[in-house]
Amino acid sequence: MHELEISVAPMHRLCKKAGADRVSEAAAEELARVLEDIGIKIAKEALDYSIHSGRKTIKAKDIEIAARKVMRK
Amino acid sequence: MHELEISVAPMHRLCKKAGADRVSEAAAEELARVLEDIGIKIAKEALDYSIHSGRKTIKAKDIEIAARKVMRK
Repeated sequence: MHELEISVAPMHRLCKKAGADRVSEAAAEELARVLEDIGIKIAKEALDYSIHSGRKTIKAKDIEIAARKVMRK
Repeated sequence: MHELEISVAPMHRLCKKAGADRVSEAAAEELARVLEDIGIKIAKEALDYSIHSGRKTIKAKDIEIAARKVMRK
């Protein structure tokens, strides 16, 4: 199993922000895993956009457009 | 501006995992913001699923089904 970059504690806080009182540890871990997968997808798209713009650095605008694309799929 | 639960340092590492060498600080912040929004959406859907199942605790299976729903939109 690959190690996650996103930690579990903030996932509990995100669920509280969403209105949840109780969240199992496995659910918080699953949310971290899911967001990590989505984050990597967005970053890959953003990298493509930066390369096509002739840059070597991913900028905020690359993330914005990549996120819109990934969320529409 | 609301404070983010997801921190910026792991976003740089996610971008490295995606193959990027260079990522601006603003891009890493944007990725954290985007993932936080998506995470809250998923958690809200998961909360609905848990309530409809007569539970008060969000479980991993609620997150799984909620993530599939949010990503399809």
